[in-house]
Amino acid sequence: MARIVMKFGGTSVAGPERIRHVSRLVTAEVRAGHEVAVVVSAMSGETNRLVRLVDELAADIINSDRIVGGAVEDEYDSVVASGEQVTSGLLAIALRRRGVRARSWLGWQIPLKTDMAHSKARIAEIENSAIGPSLRSGQVPVVAGFQGVNERGRISTLGRGGSDTSAVALAIALKADRCDIYTDVDGVYTTDPRIVPEARRLNRIAFEEMLELASLGTKVLQTRSVELAMHNNLSVRVLTSMAEVDDVNPGTLVCHEDEAMEERVVSGVAYSRDEARITLLRLADRPGMVAKVCKAMSDANIIVDMIVQGISRSDTVSNLTFTIDKHDLEKALAVLESNRDEIGHESLKSDSNVSKVSVVGIGMRSHTGVAQTMFEALAARNINIEVIATSEIKISVLIDSEYTELAVRALHGAFGLEVT
Amino acid sequence: MARIVMKFGGTSVAGPERIRHVSRLVTAEVRAGHEVAVVVSAMSGETNRLVRLVDELAADIINSDRIVGGAVEDEYDSVVASGEQVTSGLLAIALRRRGVRARSWLGWQIPLKTDMAHSKARIAEIENSAIGPSLRSGQVPVVAGFQGVNERGRISTLGRGGSDTSAVALAIALKADRCDIYTDVDGVYTTDPRIVPEARRLNRIAFEEMLELASLGTKVLQTRSVELAMHNNLSVRVLTSMAEVDDVNPGTLVCHEDEAMEERVVSGVAYSRDEARITLLRLADRPGMVAKVCKAMSDANIIVDMIVQGISRSDTVSNLTFTIDKHDLEKALAVLESNRDEIGHESLKSDSNVSKVSVVGIGMRSHTGVAQTMFEALAARNINIEVIATSEIKISVLIDSEYTELAVRALHGAFGLEVT
Repeated sequence: MARIVMKFGGTSVAGPERIRHVSRLVTAEVRAGHEVAVVVSAMSGETNRLVRLVDELAADIINSDRIVGGAVEDEYDSVVASGEQVTSGLLAIALRRRGVRARSWLGWQIPLKTDMAHSKARIAEIENSAIGPSLRSGQVPVVAGFQGVNERGRISTLGRGGSDTSAVALAIALKADRCDIYTDVDGVYTTDPRIVPEARRLNRIAFEEMLELASLGTKVLQTRSVELAMHNNLSVRVLTSMAEVDDVNPGTLVCHEDEAMEERVVSGVAYSRDEARITLLRLADRPGMVAKVCKAMSDANIIVDMIVQGISRSDTVSNLTFTIDKHDLEKALAVLESNRDEIGHESLKSDSNVSKVSVVGIGMRSHTGVAQTMFEALAARNINIEVIATSEIKISVLIDSEYTELAVRALHGAFGLEVT
Repeated sequence: MARIVMKFGGTSVAGPERIRHVSRLVTAEVRAGHEVAVVVSAMSGETNRLVRLVDELAADIINSDRIVGGAVEDEYDSVVASGEQVTSGLLAIALRRRGVRARSWLGWQIPLKTDMAHSKARIAEIENSAIGPSLRSGQVPVVAGFQGVNERGRISTLGRGGSDTSAVALAIALKADRCDIYTDVDGVYTTDPRIVPEARRLNRIAFEEMLELASLGTKVLQTRSVELAMHNNLSVRVLTSMAEVDDVNPGTLVCHEDEAMEERVVSGVAYSRDEARITLLRLADRPGMVAKVCKAMSDANIIVDMIVQGISRSDTVSNLTFTIDKHDLEKALAVLESNRDEIGHESLKSDSNVSKVSVVGIGMRSHTGVAQTMFEALAARNINIEVIATSEIKISVLIDSEYTELAVRALHGAFGLEVT
């Protein structure tokens, strides 16, 4: 007998028929003798619908000088959290219909306590004094994901994709043996199967690799949920909710490095098209110049990702190239323009037709030659590398976005990822 | 300066545009220097959508012998209460956008405490220790109607139309000067204007009259909210939310008898088509026979409304006629069939093509001749009266439903209700 937290995403609970199917998957684990707690997202599309309502009513609130009540994140949270409230109740009903004792739990009922940061709160503590005994008594708690309650008794939410984090945090609080994240894909792949049909589902992947993949554009798990699982050494399994109860459905186990080893150097190839590149030309080559640019971006809530300082023909000026999320490009250009005197660049270039392609693998720590293999594979296809960024377990390159698929396929092949 | 509770129904908050309009109405009261608390329903249609989801997942739950978890009313409440959670947050945002300090309050946050009867809970207590100071500080509390929390910390709901009751109960707890119920009509009318174009909006109506009208089919206010207001002598105003801020919008004041007097005998004519009549023929004329029939109905949760025992040709048998909600007719006939031996009727007749038409007026207490005027007006149109029921302030008749409009118009004219 194990204690399991099962988490179901938006497409898994998209309507009554899907919710009934989820109730079958949960019932199977209960019948197998396990203690089961469930975490659910809102029906797919529902969170977006609620966000649109908030956006429509909050429009111009930031530009209006008549605002007394300040921001609206507290009310955003209260409105948007209703989506998970609905699915948790419906799944509890579906489970009872199958003869399983179940009840819904909202964030404030557990309580799942968070800090005061509305719309992107962090979990402070999960009380298990109410939900723990319920679980031990054989009842299945169906927890509304994504939501908590802060110390003022207001509803808070954990940010988009936050239900993954709810599930992992709950599994840790309940000392669960594992956390199963059910989604619309059947695991973590070596790369996007829409680009590389030979992409292979990984049986295991290390936390660190999953973290890099998550932050590099692989949208299977929310980054914070992986961090949390890693720090608490909780194994997380990613698997599909579309399978039937009797199907073989191993998914991918995200676990500690030692358990994850499959004697491979590179585990996956990730890509992101949400990139934009800015180059500041003929910048005065003075100490602190890079920090000044980064601070201007940071003050505007723009995250600078890759960054490289180029050498210029003269000794006293240089170029600075960095990348940001392409949705922030317009804002970033305005910030640079208004700080032009202080930064002192002569001119700037920007490009939003760029992609970031990355190879990730724990094995890179102990193997040399990964960079060489990567650069050769790209050079052989005449793909020009604009910027390079590396960490202990990943290498990312910025390229013209036209070459994205070609680059992903080339790297997938070069590292032999299609071979089992 | 007054303290006012403003309540807005489903059509008043049906979408972003309507919610913005409501925020203008609330802002006008705040700018006039009043202390204002608001209660909102869910967007019109939303509660039905949520109920349908519950119904679909709960289908057959009562007939299944595999059910462990019992009924689903607790989860129904949690799911359905989400509708008011959404509108309370959205209206708070719309108010802030107009420069008014506002925040949403959910039932459990106040807390509005109820008994344990899920899906039809009664309010036990409203704490004003949190919401009261907020109101005094000039903040507008926007309360999610229809919902509360029970002593187990689960969400409860007050039954359909329960937001009226929330508003009245909150007004009492906050010692408000009045409670304004904004709806899609501009007040209480002498009868349905769709049937009688000359129907007149009443400036005032007594609690007792409103109670009778509410239970006789006039769907302006929930019956329980009127009872509650009456027992606490809280004036309630019914008015339209469709008016502009500057419009004259007096509505109808529901108040104590002494204040309501307009020297009239009859205040209104109500009708209901949701009636069915059952006649048990040649019933043994023994004591307790009527009680036996009523108990059988009550055990099946069927409410018996009008009831009359007819005289038969013999001394030892009689007929019994009673009316029920037409939606319960099939169930009622099954109950009578299965209890036939005990009740001992020879045969029965039933008819669901019947309507109940009623005249209501506090003045009937001190005026005679109302019944005579009523019966003469109906007789003059050859409308046959099947059953009669009276109380201190109303007379109801059951007639063939074909004659409903004719009867309503005849009575409205006979009592001179079109005259100001």
